[in-house]
Amino acid sequence: MEIKLIGFSTIPLIKEGDDLADIIIEASERESLEIEDGDIIVIAETIVSKAEGNTINLKRMKPGLKAKRLAEQTGKDPRLVEAILRESKKIIKVGHDFIISETKHGFICANAGIDESNVGNGMATPLPDDPDTTAENIRLSLIDKLGKNVSIIIADTQGRPFREGAVGVAVGVSGIKPIWDRRGETDLYGKSLKTTKIAVADELASAASMVMGQANEGIPIVIIRGYPHDHLKGEGTSKDLLRPKELDVFR
Amino acid sequence: MEIKLIGFSTIPLIKEGDDLADIIIEASERESLEIEDGDIIVIAETIVSKAEGNTINLKRMKPGLKAKRLAEQTGKDPRLVEAILRESKKIIKVGHDFIISETKHGFICANAGIDESNVGNGMATPLPDDPDTTAENIRLSLIDKLGKNVSIIIADTQGRPFREGAVGVAVGVSGIKPIWDRRGETDLYGKSLKTTKIAVADELASAASMVMGQANEGIPIVIIRGYPHDHLKGEGTSKDLLRPKELDVFR
Repeated sequence: MEIKLIGFSTIPLIKEGDDLADIIIEASERESLEIEDGDIIVIAETIVSKAEGNTINLKRMKPGLKAKRLAEQTGKDPRLVEAILRESKKIIKVGHDFIISETKHGFICANAGIDESNVGNGMATPLPDDPDTTAENIRLSLIDKLGKNVSIIIADTQGRPFREGAVGVAVGVSGIKPIWDRRGETDLYGKSLKTTKIAVADELASAASMVMGQANEGIPIVIIRGYPHDHLKGEGTSKDLLRPKELDVFR
Repeated sequence: MEIKLIGFSTIPLIKEGDDLADIIIEASERESLEIEDGDIIVIAETIVSKAEGNTINLKRMKPGLKAKRLAEQTGKDPRLVEAILRESKKIIKVGHDFIISETKHGFICANAGIDESNVGNGMATPLPDDPDTTAENIRLSLIDKLGKNVSIIIADTQGRPFREGAVGVAVGVSGIKPIWDRRGETDLYGKSLKTTKIAVADELASAASMVMGQANEGIPIVIIRGYPHDHLKGEGTSKDLLRPKELDVFR
């Protein structure tokens, strides 16, 4: 069994108004890399926000009282803190040099997912407004234009408790269920499985992240080819990856 | 840029005393899949514990007072709880149907990483005793026997706070630094990077987990080919993936 992770190497700098389905189709033609049925296309969240014109001009951000207070506590730029507050529905943990919050989407991450790298000076990109809908739109557009049945994952790179380093996670999903629920299946010995829920979309995002790199490599779109997922067809969004608050013992 | 994830499909059931380097070499010959310089070989932790005879006979486990109390609190089998306590140095969180602890290695996970699937009835496998050393031994043995410069990752599938579902993580590492420290590098615009530490070994484990599956597929060994990691050569162990206690705000 073999899975391929293929990075497009000629994606241009993305700007407001760019159509990411067209960007994918053009790269595919330029690189003679045909999109196939069953491909899972992983897209870095930063270029989604850029294409949607969803950038924050930090210089124009007017920090309120709460932002000023949190900025003092964390040593962060008050304008960035104001932006974090606007993207968050709840502050989860604050400490020296970090703010972990629950974003308006429900993700729990540092800086509300606001990214200052890979955008022009003084600018930052928040997480896309509605990454599941964006993923759905790109998928439908590719099906329409290419006749290929692909799935889309929009990926971010985030830290996590207990373990050092950030890893790729899915923040938007279309065409594939993000969780593989294996309850009822049995192991090699006919016993029922213990680990029954696999966060497939996060594993796909982590795999793609290996290709994307984070800086001047500039590989924001990766095709995952050969991953069997007929059993994961159906409705599903990135919300399925969020543990319900009342079941999460770490918040 | 292309990375391949290749699963061996003919690995036999592993038993105590099996030499995993030989198991890999034999599978490679049987499947005409030559090991190459730069391959990263990801091995499921369960077969490491099995090969090392590191299994727990739950029927013979005598639960002490603490185990009985925790069993009542969680609804778990007192013998399993006793095994969890013996593998743990600290209990982190307990609730209905779960025990999250810090294992003797320092990993924070459910059930101290003890796995009841894919072993015979009444048996369970804990995490390997010293997965970094096992990874190192397998790597040196493969270099010795094949003359190929490979890296080894021993992988588990673990849950995490905030997000649903388990993902692959590295519990043993040899030949590759598990964390890619990118401080000092710049982005597309010449600004310094914000996300500077990537948990490469966990991303590799998650990618391999996509191939391994969890049940009767039985693909416990996966080759990752084409992942550039010259910059990650050097000393490193799975301990580098553990956030120091005093810096972890979630414990």
